[in-house]
Amino acid sequence: MSTKTKLSYTPSIRRLPSYLHIIRAFQRTSDPYISGTWIANELNLEPIQVRKDLAITGIVGKPKKGYPVEQLISAIEHYLAWDVEQKAIIVGAGNLGSALTGYQEFRNHGLHIVAAFDSDPSKTGKTIHQVQIFHMENLKEIVEKMNITLAILTVPSPYAQSSCDAIVAAGIRAIWNFTNVKLKVPEEVLVQREDLSSGYAILSVMMRTQANNLS
Amino acid sequence: MSTKTKLSYTPSIRRLPSYLHIIRAFQRTSDPYISGTWIANELNLEPIQVRKDLAITGIVGKPKKGYPVEQLISAIEHYLAWDVEQKAIIVGAGNLGSALTGYQEFRNHGLHIVAAFDSDPSKTGKTIHQVQIFHMENLKEIVEKMNITLAILTVPSPYAQSSCDAIVAAGIRAIWNFTNVKLKVPEEVLVQREDLSSGYAILSVMMRTQANNLS
Repeated sequence: MSTKTKLSYTPSIRRLPSYLHIIRAFQRTSDPYISGTWIANELNLEPIQVRKDLAITGIVGKPKKGYPVEQLISAIEHYLAWDVEQKAIIVGAGNLGSALTGYQEFRNHGLHIVAAFDSDPSKTGKTIHQVQIFHMENLKEIVEKMNITLAILTVPSPYAQSSCDAIVAAGIRAIWNFTNVKLKVPEEVLVQREDLSSGYAILSVMMRTQANNLS
Repeated sequence: MSTKTKLSYTPSIRRLPSYLHIIRAFQRTSDPYISGTWIANELNLEPIQVRKDLAITGIVGKPKKGYPVEQLISAIEHYLAWDVEQKAIIVGAGNLGSALTGYQEFRNHGLHIVAAFDSDPSKTGKTIHQVQIFHMENLKEIVEKMNITLAILTVPSPYAQSSCDAIVAAGIRAIWNFTNVKLKVPEEVLVQREDLSSGYAILSVMMRTQANNLS
Protein backbone atom coordinates (compact mmCIF):
# COMPACT_ATOMS: atom_id res chain seq x y z
CA MET A 1 0.00 0.00 0.00
CA SER A 2 1.28 3.46 -0.83
CA THR A 3 2.16 5.57 2.18
CA LYS A 4 0.93 8.65 0.31
CA THR A 5 -2.69 8.54 1.35
CA LYS A 6 -4.75 11.25 -0.27
CA LEU A 7 -6.66 13.24 2.32
CA SER A 8 -10.39 13.13 1.75
CA TYR A 9 -11.28 16.07 3.95
CA THR A 10 -8.80 18.75 2.87
CA PRO A 11 -11.19 21.76 2.93
CA SER A 12 -12.59 20.63 6.31
CA ILE A 13 -9.11 20.17 7.78
CA ARG A 14 -8.14 23.65 6.57
CA ARG A 15 -11.05 25.10 8.57
CA LEU A 16 -10.35 23.23 11.83
CA PRO A 17 -7.68 25.70 13.03
CA SER A 18 -10.18 28.60 12.77
CA TYR A 19 -12.72 26.60 14.76
CA LEU A 20 -10.09 25.85 17.39
CA HIS A 21 -9.25 29.56 17.64
CA ILE A 22 -12.93 30.51 18.09
CA ILE A 23 -13.63 27.73 20.59
CA ARG A 24 -10.58 28.59 22.70
CA ALA A 25 -11.74 32.21 22.88
CA PHE A 26 -15.25 30.99 23.84
CA GLN A 27 -13.73 28.79 26.57
CA ARG A 28 -13.01 31.95 28.60
CA THR A 29 -16.77 32.51 29.01
CA SER A 30 -16.90 29.31 31.16
CA ASP A 31 -20.02 28.16 29.31
CA PRO A 32 -19.56 24.35 29.13
CA TYR A 33 -21.32 24.00 25.73
CA ILE A 34 -20.81 25.71 22.38
CA SER A 35 -23.23 25.45 19.46
CA GLY A 36 -22.27 24.81 15.85
CA THR A 37 -24.46 27.75 14.83
CA TRP A 38 -22.49 30.09 17.07
CA ILE A 39 -19.19 28.98 15.51
CA ALA A 40 -20.74 29.30 12.04
CA ASN A 41 -21.86 32.89 12.70
CA GLU A 42 -18.42 33.89 13.95
CA LEU A 43 -16.81 32.64 10.73
CA ASN A 44 -19.55 33.46 8.19
CA LEU A 45 -20.12 29.79 7.39
CA GLU A 46 -23.26 27.68 7.19
CA PRO A 47 -24.06 25.75 10.42
CA ILE A 48 -24.40 22.48 8.45
CA GLN A 49 -20.86 22.97 7.13
CA VAL A 50 -19.48 23.44 10.65
CA ARG A 51 -21.25 20.32 11.92
CA LYS A 52 -19.95 18.25 8.98
CA ASP A 53 -16.41 19.54 9.50
CA LEU A 54 -16.44 18.81 13.23
CA ALA A 55 -17.83 15.33 12.61
CA ILE A 56 -14.53 14.24 11.01
CA THR A 57 -12.89 14.50 14.43
CA GLY A 58 -15.41 11.96 15.76
CA ILE A 59 -17.22 14.32 18.14
CA VAL A 60 -21.03 14.44 18.26
CA GLY A 61 -22.99 17.42 19.54
CA LYS A 62 -25.97 17.16 21.91
CA PRO A 63 -29.34 18.38 20.58
CA LYS A 64 -30.17 21.90 21.86
CA LYS A 65 -26.95 22.06 23.93
CA GLY A 66 -24.19 21.84 21.34
CA TYR A 67 -20.68 20.51 21.85
CA PRO A 68 -18.98 20.13 25.24
CA VAL A 69 -16.20 22.75 24.98
CA GLU A 70 -13.34 20.85 26.62
CA GLN A 71 -14.00 17.65 24.69
CA LEU A 72 -14.38 19.53 21.43
CA ILE A 73 -10.97 21.18 21.85
CA SER A 74 -9.40 17.80 22.70
CA ALA A 75 -11.08 16.11 19.73
CA ILE A 76 -9.82 18.71 17.25
CA GLU A 77 -6.31 18.75 18.72
CA HIS A 78 -6.15 14.98 18.72
CA TYR A 79 -7.41 14.73 15.14
CA LEU A 80 -4.78 17.25 14.00
CA ALA A 81 -2.10 15.53 16.10
CA TRP A 82 -1.54 18.92 17.71
CA ASP A 83 -1.53 17.30 21.16
CA VAL A 84 1.96 15.91 20.52
CA GLU A 85 5.04 18.08 20.24
CA GLN A 86 6.54 18.31 16.76
CA LYS A 87 10.17 19.41 16.50
CA ALA A 88 10.90 21.37 13.35
CA ILE A 89 13.73 23.25 11.71
CA ILE A 90 13.74 26.26 9.42
CA VAL A 91 15.89 25.86 6.31
CA GLY A 92 16.61 29.35 4.95
CA ALA A 93 17.01 32.01 7.64
CA GLY A 94 15.82 34.98 5.57
CA ASN A 95 12.80 37.22 6.16
CA LEU A 96 10.20 34.51 5.71
CA GLY A 97 12.12 31.99 7.84
CA SER A 98 12.48 34.60 10.53
CA ALA A 99 8.79 35.55 10.36
CA LEU A 100 7.70 31.91 10.71
CA THR A 101 10.10 31.36 13.63
CA GLY A 102 8.39 34.22 15.44
CA TYR A 103 4.83 33.13 14.54
CA GLN A 104 3.16 32.72 17.94
CA GLU A 105 0.25 30.56 16.72
CA PHE A 106 2.55 27.63 15.92
CA ARG A 107 3.54 27.25 19.56
CA ASN A 108 -0.15 26.77 20.47
CA HIS A 109 -0.23 23.91 17.96
CA GLY A 110 2.63 21.84 19.34
CA LEU A 111 5.01 23.06 16.63
CA HIS A 112 8.42 23.88 18.09
CA ILE A 113 11.02 25.38 15.78
CA VAL A 114 14.24 24.37 17.49
CA ALA A 115 16.93 25.35 14.98
CA ALA A 116 17.45 27.31 11.76
CA PHE A 117 19.88 26.62 8.92
CA ASP A 118 21.40 28.82 6.27
CA SER A 119 24.22 28.42 3.76
CA ASP A 120 25.44 31.97 4.42
CA PRO A 121 28.35 31.61 6.90
CA SER A 122 27.86 35.19 8.15
CA LYS A 123 24.54 34.07 9.72
CA THR A 124 26.03 31.06 11.56
CA GLY A 125 25.83 31.46 15.33
CA LYS A 126 23.30 34.30 15.21
CA THR A 127 19.72 33.85 16.43
CA ILE A 128 16.25 34.66 15.10
CA HIS A 129 13.57 34.89 17.81
CA GLN A 130 15.90 33.03 20.23
CA VAL A 131 16.42 30.19 17.73
CA GLN A 132 20.06 29.55 16.77
CA ILE A 133 21.17 29.60 13.13
CA PHE A 134 23.52 26.80 12.04
CA HIS A 135 25.38 26.31 8.79
CA MET A 136 23.82 23.90 6.28
CA GLU A 137 26.93 21.71 6.61
CA ASN A 138 25.79 20.73 10.11
CA LEU A 139 22.22 19.83 9.10
CA LYS A 140 22.48 16.04 9.31
CA GLU A 141 24.39 16.05 12.59
CA ILE A 142 21.92 18.37 14.36
CA VAL A 143 18.79 16.76 12.91
CA GLU A 144 19.94 13.38 14.24
CA LYS A 145 20.99 14.76 17.63
CA MET A 146 17.75 16.71 18.15
CA ASN A 147 15.37 14.13 16.69
CA ILE A 148 13.81 16.49 14.14
CA THR A 149 10.80 15.24 12.16
CA LEU A 150 9.83 18.26 10.05
CA ALA A 151 11.65 20.84 7.94
CA ILE A 152 10.16 24.18 6.90
CA LEU A 153 11.74 25.21 3.61
CA THR A 154 12.08 28.98 3.13
CA VAL A 155 15.11 29.33 0.85
CA PRO A 156 15.01 31.27 -2.45
CA SER A 157 13.62 29.08 -5.27
CA PRO A 158 16.97 28.40 -7.02
CA TYR A 159 18.19 26.65 -3.84
CA ALA A 160 14.96 24.76 -3.16
CA GLN A 161 15.83 21.36 -4.68
CA SER A 162 19.41 21.18 -3.35
CA SER A 163 18.23 22.17 0.14
CA CYS A 164 15.45 19.59 -0.11
CA ASP A 165 18.00 16.92 -1.01
CA ALA A 166 20.06 17.82 2.06
CA ILE A 167 16.93 17.63 4.25
CA VAL A 168 16.03 14.19 2.90
CA ALA A 169 19.65 12.98 3.28
CA ALA A 170 19.48 14.09 6.92
CA GLY A 171 16.59 11.66 7.45
CA ILE A 172 13.63 14.06 7.64
CA ARG A 173 10.40 12.65 6.19
CA ALA A 174 8.13 15.72 6.14
CA ILE A 175 8.77 19.05 4.41
CA TRP A 176 6.61 22.17 4.54
CA ASN A 177 7.58 23.86 1.29
CA PHE A 178 7.20 27.65 1.09
CA THR A 179 9.03 27.89 -2.25
CA ASN A 180 7.21 27.72 -5.59
CA VAL A 181 9.29 24.72 -6.71
CA LYS A 182 7.73 21.28 -7.13
CA LEU A 183 10.26 19.26 -5.12
CA LYS A 184 11.47 15.86 -6.25
CA VAL A 185 11.49 13.55 -3.22
CA PRO A 186 11.50 9.79 -2.58
CA GLU A 187 8.08 8.12 -2.24
CA GLU A 188 8.18 8.03 1.58
CA VAL A 189 8.75 11.78 2.03
CA LEU A 190 5.72 14.02 2.56
CA VAL A 191 5.66 17.48 1.04
CA GLN A 192 3.03 20.12 1.76
CA ARG A 193 3.40 23.16 -0.47
CA GLU A 194 2.25 26.44 1.00
CA ASP A 195 1.13 28.75 -1.74
CA LEU A 196 0.39 32.29 -0.60
CA SER A 197 -1.11 32.88 -4.03
CA SER A 198 -4.10 30.71 -3.03
CA GLY A 199 -5.27 33.21 -0.45
CA TYR A 200 -4.71 36.04 -2.89
CA ALA A 201 -6.80 34.18 -5.48
CA ILE A 202 -9.76 34.07 -3.07
CA LEU A 203 -9.36 37.76 -2.23
CA SER A 204 -9.10 38.73 -5.91
CA VAL A 205 -12.32 36.92 -6.82
CA MET A 206 -14.11 38.49 -3.83
CA MET A 207 -12.94 41.95 -4.92
CA ARG A 208 -14.06 41.37 -8.50
CA THR A 209 -17.44 39.99 -7.35
CA GLN A 210 -17.97 42.93 -5.03
CA ALA A 211 -17.06 45.44 -7.73
CA ASN A 212 -19.61 43.77 -10.06
CA ASN A 213 -22.29 43.83 -7.35
CA LEU A 214 -21.73 47.50 -6.65
CA SER A 215 -21.72 48.60 -10.28
CA MET B 1 -28.43 42.98 -1.70
CA SER B 2 -25.46 42.40 0.55
CA THR B 3 -22.13 43.14 -1.07
CA LYS B 4 -20.58 40.27 0.89
CA THR B 5 -21.22 37.49 -1.55
CA LYS B 6 -20.15 34.12 -0.25
CA LEU B 7 -17.88 32.36 -2.71
CA SER B 8 -19.26 29.01 -3.82
CA TYR B 9 -16.05 27.65 -5.27
CA THR B 10 -13.50 28.38 -2.55
CA PRO B 11 -11.55 25.09 -2.75
CA SER B 12 -11.48 25.30 -6.56
CA ILE B 13 -10.29 28.92 -6.51
CA ARG B 14 -7.52 27.96 -4.06
CA ARG B 15 -6.24 25.41 -6.60
CA LEU B 16 -6.31 27.72 -9.65
CA PRO B 17 -2.91 29.35 -8.87
CA SER B 18 -1.21 25.90 -8.88
CA TYR B 19 -2.82 25.11 -12.22
CA LEU B 20 -1.62 28.43 -13.61
CA HIS B 21 1.92 27.69 -12.41
CA ILE B 22 1.92 24.25 -14.08
CA ILE B 23 0.35 25.52 -17.31
CA ARG B 24 2.84 28.38 -17.60
CA ALA B 25 5.71 25.91 -17.22
CA PHE B 26 4.07 23.69 -19.86
CA GLN B 27 3.75 26.68 -22.19
CA ARG B 28 7.54 26.55 -22.75
CA THR B 29 7.14 23.17 -24.52
CA SER B 30 5.25 24.99 -27.34
CA ASP B 31 2.60 22.25 -27.39
CA PRO B 32 -0.64 24.20 -28.12
CA TYR B 33 -2.85 21.85 -26.02
CA ILE B 34 -2.62 20.64 -22.42
CA SER B 35 -4.74 17.83 -21.00
CA GLY B 36 -6.55 17.90 -17.68
CA THR B 37 -5.05 14.50 -16.89
CA TRP B 38 -1.53 15.87 -17.33
CA ILE B 39 -2.25 18.74 -14.92
CA ALA B 40 -3.86 16.28 -12.49
CA ASN B 41 -0.78 14.02 -12.50
CA GLU B 42 1.56 16.92 -11.84
CA LEU B 43 -0.44 17.92 -8.76
CA ASN B 44 -1.54 14.49 -7.48
CA LEU B 45 -5.19 15.30 -8.08
CA GLU B 46 -7.98 13.40 -9.81
CA PRO B 47 -8.52 14.43 -13.49
CA ILE B 48 -12.27 14.91 -12.86
CA GLN B 49 -11.40 17.40 -10.09
CA VAL B 50 -9.14 19.40 -12.40
CA ARG B 51 -11.80 19.53 -15.14
CA LYS B 52 -14.46 20.67 -12.64
CA ASP B 53 -12.14 23.35 -11.24
CA LEU B 54 -11.22 24.70 -14.67
CA ALA B 55 -14.89 24.76 -15.69
CA ILE B 56 -15.59 27.62 -13.25
CA THR B 57 -13.47 29.90 -15.45
CA GLY B 58 -15.81 29.15 -18.37
CA ILE B 59 -13.28 27.27 -20.50
CA VAL B 60 -14.17 23.95 -22.15
CA GLY B 61 -11.57 21.37 -23.25
CA LYS B 62 -11.65 19.59 -26.60
CA PRO B 63 -12.08 15.80 -26.51
CA LYS B 64 -8.72 13.97 -26.97
CA LYS B 65 -6.85 17.28 -27.35
CA GLY B 66 -7.35 19.03 -24.05
CA TYR B 67 -7.30 22.76 -23.40
CA PRO B 68 -5.74 25.35 -25.71
CA VAL B 69 -2.82 26.59 -23.58
CA GLU B 70 -2.97 30.33 -24.32
CA GLN B 71 -6.74 30.53 -23.86
CA LEU B 72 -6.57 28.49 -20.67
CA ILE B 73 -4.04 30.88 -19.14
CA SER B 74 -6.16 33.88 -20.16
CA ALA B 75 -9.34 32.29 -18.80
CA ILE B 76 -7.79 31.60 -15.38
CA GLU B 77 -6.16 35.02 -15.16
CA HIS B 78 -9.37 36.73 -16.17
CA TYR B 79 -11.45 34.72 -13.68
CA LEU B 80 -9.01 35.64 -10.89
CA ALA B 81 -8.86 39.26 -12.07
CA TRP B 82 -5.11 38.80 -12.25
CA ASP B 83 -5.05 40.45 -15.68
CA VAL B 84 -5.56 43.85 -14.06
CA GLU B 85 -2.93 45.54 -11.92
CA GLN B 86 -3.76 45.75 -8.22
CA LYS B 87 -1.91 48.34 -6.17
CA ALA B 88 -1.36 47.27 -2.59
CA ILE B 89 0.38 48.48 0.55
CA ILE B 90 2.01 46.57 3.39
CA VAL B 91 0.96 47.72 6.86
CA GLY B 92 3.59 46.49 9.32
CA ALA B 93 7.14 46.50 7.92
CA GLY B 94 8.49 43.64 10.05
CA ASN B 95 9.84 40.27 8.91
CA LEU B 96 6.58 39.04 7.44
CA GLY B 97 5.83 42.35 5.71
CA SER B 98 9.32 42.32 4.26
CA ALA B 99 9.04 38.69 3.14
CA LEU B 100 5.74 39.38 1.35
CA THR B 101 7.16 42.50 -0.33
CA GLY B 102 9.92 40.34 -1.79
CA TYR B 103 7.61 37.46 -2.80
CA GLN B 104 8.22 37.14 -6.56
CA GLU B 105 5.03 35.19 -7.34
CA PHE B 106 2.81 38.16 -6.51
CA ARG B 107 4.29 40.20 -9.36
CA ASN B 108 3.21 37.48 -11.81
CA HIS B 109 -0.33 37.90 -10.52
CA GLY B 110 -0.72 41.61 -11.08
CA LEU B 111 -0.16 42.41 -7.40
CA HIS B 112 2.11 45.41 -6.99
CA ILE B 113 3.17 46.38 -3.49
CA VAL B 114 3.92 50.08 -3.89
CA ALA B 115 4.45 51.29 -0.32
CA ALA B 116 4.93 50.01 3.22
CA PHE B 117 3.82 51.58 6.50
CA ASP B 118 5.04 51.23 10.05
CA SER B 119 4.42 53.13 13.28
CA ASP B 120 8.10 52.87 14.24
CA PRO B 121 9.64 56.24 13.21
CA SER B 122 13.11 54.67 12.94
CA LYS B 123 11.90 52.73 9.89
CA THR B 124 10.48 55.78 8.08
CA GLY B 125 12.35 56.51 4.83
CA LYS B 126 14.06 53.11 4.70
CA THR B 127 13.18 50.56 2.01
CA ILE B 128 12.36 46.85 1.91
CA HIS B 129 12.93 45.22 -1.48
CA GLN B 130 13.00 48.69 -3.11
CA VAL B 131 9.66 49.62 -1.54
CA GLN B 132 9.70 52.72 0.64
CA ILE B 133 8.53 52.65 4.26
CA PHE B 134 6.32 55.53 5.37
CA HIS B 135 5.05 56.44 8.83
CA MET B 136 1.46 55.37 9.65
CA GLU B 137 0.59 59.06 10.05
CA ASN B 138 0.89 59.49 6.29
CA LEU B 139 -1.31 56.50 5.40
CA LYS B 140 -4.43 58.36 4.23
CA GLU B 141 -2.51 60.92 2.22
CA ILE B 142 -0.44 58.33 0.32
CA VAL B 143 -3.32 55.90 -0.20
CA GLU B 144 -5.34 58.67 -1.84
CA LYS B 145 -2.45 59.95 -3.92
CA MET B 146 -1.44 56.48 -5.19
CA ASN B 147 -4.96 55.09 -5.66
CA ILE B 148 -4.41 52.05 -3.44
CA THR B 149 -7.17 49.41 -3.34
CA LEU B 150 -5.72 46.71 -1.08
CA ALA B 151 -3.88 46.62 2.24
CA ILE B 152 -1.85 43.63 3.46
CA LEU B 153 -1.90 43.64 7.26
CA THR B 154 1.25 42.23 8.88
CA VAL B 155 1.43 44.07 12.21
CA PRO B 156 1.71 42.23 15.56
CA SER B 157 -1.76 41.15 16.79
CA PRO B 158 -2.16 43.83 19.52
CA TYR B 159 -1.98 46.50 16.80
CA ALA B 160 -4.23 44.69 14.32
CA GLN B 161 -7.57 46.44 15.03
CA SER B 162 -6.17 49.99 15.34
CA SER B 163 -4.17 49.53 12.10
CA CYS B 164 -7.28 48.14 10.42
CA ASP B 165 -9.26 51.21 11.53
CA ALA B 166 -6.61 53.47 9.98
CA ILE B 167 -6.73 51.46 6.73
CA VAL B 168 -10.53 51.75 6.54
CA ALA B 169 -10.39 55.48 7.38
CA ALA B 170 -7.94 55.91 4.48
CA GLY B 171 -10.64 54.56 2.12
CA ILE B 172 -9.30 51.05 1.41
CA ARG B 173 -12.04 48.45 0.90
CA ALA B 174 -10.04 45.19 0.87
CA ILE B 175 -7.72 43.86 3.58
CA TRP B 176 -5.56 40.73 3.44
CA ASN B 177 -5.20 39.95 7.13
CA PHE B 178 -2.11 37.99 8.20
CA THR B 179 -2.80 38.53 11.93
CA ASN B 180 -4.84 36.08 14.00
CA VAL B 181 -7.32 38.80 14.98
CA LYS B 182 -10.92 38.77 13.72
CA LEU B 183 -11.12 42.35 12.48
CA LYS B 184 -14.20 44.51 12.99
CA VAL B 185 -14.91 46.34 9.73
CA PRO B 186 -17.89 48.09 8.11
CA GLU B 187 -20.13 45.92 5.90
CA GLU B 188 -18.58 47.12 2.64
CA VAL B 189 -14.99 46.20 3.56
CA LEU B 190 -13.68 42.80 2.45
CA VAL B 191 -11.33 40.89 4.73
CA GLN B 192 -9.50 37.71 3.76
CA ARG B 193 -7.70 36.15 6.70
CA GLU B 194 -4.57 34.20 5.87
CA ASP B 195 -4.06 31.48 8.44
CA LEU B 196 -0.74 29.69 8.12
CA SER B 197 -2.08 27.16 10.63
CA SER B 198 -4.37 25.77 7.88
CA GLY B 199 -1.44 24.44 5.88
CA TYR B 200 0.13 23.06 9.03
CA ALA B 201 -3.15 21.29 9.86
CA ILE B 202 -3.05 19.46 6.50
CA LEU B 203 0.59 18.50 7.01
CA SER B 204 -0.04 17.27 10.57
CA VAL B 205 -2.88 15.01 9.49
CA MET B 206 -0.78 13.64 6.60
CA MET B 207 2.10 12.92 9.01
CA ARG B 208 -0.22 11.18 11.47
CA THR B 209 -1.88 9.15 8.67
CA GLN B 210 1.49 8.12 7.27
CA ALA B 211 2.78 7.09 10.72
CA ASN B 212 -0.35 4.93 11.17
CA ASN B 213 0.08 3.35 7.73
CA LEU B 214 3.70 2.47 8.40
CA SER B 215 3.14 0.99 11.85
